[in-house]
Amino acid sequence: MRHTILVTGGVRSGKSAIAEERTLGFGAPATYIATAQALDDEMAERIARHQARRGPEWRTVSEPLDLPAAIAASDGTPRLVDCLTLWLTNLMLAERDWRAETERLTATLARQSAPVVLVSNEVGLGIVPDNALARRFRDAAGLMNQDVAKVADEVILAVAGLPLKVK
Amino acid sequence: MRHTILVTGGVRSGKSAIAEERTLGFGAPATYIATAQALDDEMAERIARHQARRGPEWRTVSEPLDLPAAIAASDGTPRLVDCLTLWLTNLMLAERDWRAETERLTATLARQSAPVVLVSNEVGLGIVPDNALARRFRDAAGLMNQDVAKVADEVILAVAGLPLKVK
Amino acid sequence: MRHTILVTGGVRSGKSAIAEERTLGFGAPATYIATAQALDDEMAERIARHQARRGPEWRTVSEPLDLPAAIAASDGTPRLVDCLTLWLTNLMLAERDWRAETERLTATLARQSAPVVLVSNEVGLGIVPDNALARRFRDAAGLMNQDVAKVADEVILAVAGLPLKVK
Repeated sequence: MRHTILVTGGVRSGKSAIAEERTLGFGAPATYIATAQALDDEMAERIARHQARRGPEWRTVSEPLDLPAAIAASDGTPRLVDCLTLWLTNLMLAERDWRAETERLTATLARQSAPVVLVSNEVGLGIVPDNALARRFRDAAGLMNQDVAKVADEVILAVAGLPLKVK
Repeated sequence: MRHTILVTGGVRSGKSAIAEERTLGFGAPATYIATAQALDDEMAERIARHQARRGPEWRTVSEPLDLPAAIAASDGTPRLVDCLTLWLTNLMLAERDWRAETERLTATLARQSAPVVLVSNEVGLGIVPDNALARRFRDAAGLMNQDVAKVADEVILAVAGLPLKVK
Repeated sequence: MRHTILVTGGVRSGKSAIAEERTLGFGAPATYIATAQALDDEMAERIARHQARRGPEWRTVSEPLDLPAAIAASDGTPRLVDCLTLWLTNLMLAERDWRAETERLTATLARQSAPVVLVSNEVGLGIVPDNALARRFRDAAGLMNQDVAKVADEVILAVAGLPLKVK
């Protein structure tokens, strides 16, 4: 059964735990699609911490750029994508057209036969950042979240580890 | 019928689209009250993009400072104010008393005979900014949102393009 | 009756007013447990403004570091803790183990016979901060909020002065 869930929220709001629980609720084994790249020690530590929490029900796939292909290749199992804002960062650093890639993503989501749960970040509820790149990034993240929310069956805002139903 | 709606949320959370739909739901033609000033190219581009999305049902009025007067002058049509945080920025740059102006605004809203939908921004859910002006601005924005929410019939938090009912 | 409420939200979102109303709803006199330290004029002014709004139903206790002890010592009256993120700041500045202190806090909350309402801040919905300390702080604040939310009977997100029920 096709079912798409977007879990969004602030940093350390418990998004990943909520998303993992929802993904395994569709059955196991599940596929964890990591978009993170361990570019520095801080990020490597975060990735390791996330992996340690996940159990043997998970098969992990790493795909920093071609997320639609990774989703298509793992159809048949419940998928967890963690996370869209890191994917967006990777696309922007690689100077890809993130808008076109987002369209590919939503088109791919519409063609799945198994569920996909996507984690994203809310980054636009602070003061306007000083530098133009950060402003472009938060604009892009907000638009990407809107596009994915449009095709999602459920949208959840994580607050203090709890799911708040938005759609 | 008097009806006041506050649509708040992060940047690129779909606030304007939600607010436009709600405004036109009250009937057309509607009045778009823009508080934006095209002070630089980035802002001019954003204004143009917003205008391009709106259709011929809209009459546009530009008023960076005297928002209560612009609202009073357009009574009889549904109004969309986009947005309160830019208005606050303009007031602070012009060294006006934003607290007194907010009181004028809420008093004006109470006297309208046609609906007013107001867009605002949530700017206080990030880390404390380094500079004192940014801290004063986010304090003021939060207090203004509270004041307008108090007199509003509906308050909506936009999340990923979706309306979350707060009041 | 033991009852724990977490009121979280952005800066100037009306958290304190909501929390005060909920605390007094359990009866008076109530105990206000302030974690703030008046380290500079801006903070002193903020503390004074908060105190001025509270009435004679409140007994004020100031405890920047040993919050669990202050809660235990005031059992029998409704308590308001304002706020957890300032407590976290104090713990980090004093180089205490905030994770161990959070465990002491949640264990203490579980042993109370009278209600406790705790105010916290959402600080993780903006752009990733440039400096590592700010990133550590927002990670810690998010995790602390999750831990307290887990043991809370109610969790409220304050938006524009209005309570949004999360749990």
